[in-house]
Amino acid sequence: MAEEMMNNKQIILKHYVEGYPKESDMEFKNSIIKLNVPEGSNVVVLKNLYLSCDPYMRSRMKNLEDSYVESFTPGYPITGCGVAKVLKSGDSNFQEGDLVWGMIGWEEYSIVTPIQSFLFKIHDKNVPLSYYTGILGMPGITAYVGFYEVCSPKKGETVFVSAASGAVGQLVGQFAKMLGCYVVGSAGTKQKVDMLKSKFGFDEAFNYKEEQDLDAALKRYFSDGIDIYFDNVGGKMFDAVLVNMKLHGRIAMCGMISQYNLKKTEGVHNLLCLIAKRICMKGFIVSDHFHLYPKYLEMIIPQIKGGNIVYVEDIAEGLENAPKALVGLFYGRNVGKQVVMVSRE
Amino acid sequence: MAEEMMNNKQIILKHYVEGYPKESDMEFKNSIIKLNVPEGSNVVVLKNLYLSCDPYMRSRMKNLEDSYVESFTPGYPITGCGVAKVLKSGDSNFQEGDLVWGMIGWEEYSIVTPIQSFLFKIHDKNVPLSYYTGILGMPGITAYVGFYEVCSPKKGETVFVSAASGAVGQLVGQFAKMLGCYVVGSAGTKQKVDMLKSKFGFDEAFNYKEEQDLDAALKRYFSDGIDIYFDNVGGKMFDAVLVNMKLHGRIAMCGMISQYNLKKTEGVHNLLCLIAKRICMKGFIVSDHFHLYPKYLEMIIPQIKGGNIVYVEDIAEGLENAPKALVGLFYGRNVGKQVVMVSRE
Repeated sequence: MAEEMMNNKQIILKHYVEGYPKESDMEFKNSIIKLNVPEGSNVVVLKNLYLSCDPYMRSRMKNLEDSYVESFTPGYPITGCGVAKVLKSGDSNFQEGDLVWGMIGWEEYSIVTPIQSFLFKIHDKNVPLSYYTGILGMPGITAYVGFYEVCSPKKGETVFVSAASGAVGQLVGQFAKMLGCYVVGSAGTKQKVDMLKSKFGFDEAFNYKEEQDLDAALKRYFSDGIDIYFDNVGGKMFDAVLVNMKLHGRIAMCGMISQYNLKKTEGVHNLLCLIAKRICMKGFIVSDHFHLYPKYLEMIIPQIKGGNIVYVEDIAEGLENAPKALVGLFYGRNVGKQVVMVSRE
Repeated sequence: MAEEMMNNKQIILKHYVEGYPKESDMEFKNSIIKLNVPEGSNVVVLKNLYLSCDPYMRSRMKNLEDSYVESFTPGYPITGCGVAKVLKSGDSNFQEGDLVWGMIGWEEYSIVTPIQSFLFKIHDKNVPLSYYTGILGMPGITAYVGFYEVCSPKKGETVFVSAASGAVGQLVGQFAKMLGCYVVGSAGTKQKVDMLKSKFGFDEAFNYKEEQDLDAALKRYFSDGIDIYFDNVGGKMFDAVLVNMKLHGRIAMCGMISQYNLKKTEGVHNLLCLIAKRICMKGFIVSDHFHLYPKYLEMIIPQIKGGNIVYVEDIAEGLENAPKALVGLFYGRNVGKQVVMVSRE
């Protein structure tokens, strides 16, 4: 088999990161890759098209012990969810030319083992391919599982979503509206707040950065309390929500972007509310629920095509801009799901 | 109907309390009561026998708004669970001579409305009557519901109980052992720790006051982590447990005695563990589950009579000693369930 030696530009994590990540914690550099499948191996060779920037990646920039995700390895490319095209395959489930999504490297080409990379074949191509990093990928299943399975929502309930214009939040809000809930979201700019109401159909939205008193802000929109809180941020907002929950409320703990860059996380003081209000609070990890992906696709694709669900992406062009895009997440610079386009195909 | 005017000694709450309650926050004084049922009324007139001292009563000493319990009224008797004898009844469900338990006043005689007081008739008298303030009363159902319903326990799982020698904890530990779990408890004196192992059959126990590092203490007993945490204390112990939970662990939030006397509750910092470990955490209030009481009695009474479940009480003699007994709870002075004997019948 002829071995194709190729240049392979990569984003390397230079070292473990403390505090807010900086572009200079990463390096854009060239390497050489052999685009072949070794005899007897079941790897697939991928040309990478779109990369996903997700908040949970911050924790992988630390030296983690005993976590549900592995640390990145300093000196090696960052990895994350992405969309790719199969160039060569040692696995009979994947053929040359297939489009796939799963865990890939932040590089032009990756060689992965399908099972380790949670590689899914993309069947429906009549949607933007980048959607498989978002609404049709991990954030989509996250929103689906987190809302329908973890929150046990009922028509007419009141729902609060933080980081509501993000990859997951914008979907949770729309799912809740579809079900007939009253939905309020928080975000960090006027543009995002406007988008929540005008584009995603949230009943109300507010800019948490402009609120002196989060408790008062929540009371303004939830005079009778919150049935469901979909938490993407943790910290002070979480504490303020606790005192505004209704009896028998539910909290889905999806992520805590406000805490990832802190040396010591903020203390949460209002946990007694969980007892008084009989709250059920659950943390979840999307990969436990990947078996629901086919069911989710069946539900969501017609909704997208019918225009009932919209999805806003913020696409950075070019692998070299990936570090900036990732860092921007933690400053809320992205408007909608942050994607990096590596190649259009 | 002749009106019987009687002296009625009472324990009065003098004022709302800040910080640790003191005996001087309460007053032992005499009043006069008419022991009769007004024409057409459905009240019952009770002679009080045993009073229950429970940690949740601390919150009722504050001026509460919007809580699941009502504040005590300064100038009036403290109220709480207790066992009493019916002297007169305006309710056809209760007859003179019946023994009952429910919410009664801290006084020699009370006049209550059965429904408002959650009054239960006592059928089985071949057990110590005081048990109806504990194992056969509110703490008993609390342990039963909290462990079996909230924790979804399975044979062989690892269980940690804080305040383990208390009214609820000693039962949770014994229920867990009956189910074939590995059970560890924490308490605040050597005597209590010894009792956990020798009397209640806990596999291990430790004195939290003697541990410099609660995380290390938990790791000593749970090298593979904790499946179920039955939390009676909150605060630092709660935080230390979070990092020692197993994947898919469950936490029943029953109470937070370490926090009740603080002006500002301690901050909990390790909530991110709930996500990584997919923990389900639930607060609960026993009164939501009173419908399970008959089922619970059916289970527990044979276990008591068969000697499979033991119950340790700490009985203060005389109503005048009730304030001291209640205050003692918050210093861990009680060994086992704290009861006050008002009259033996």
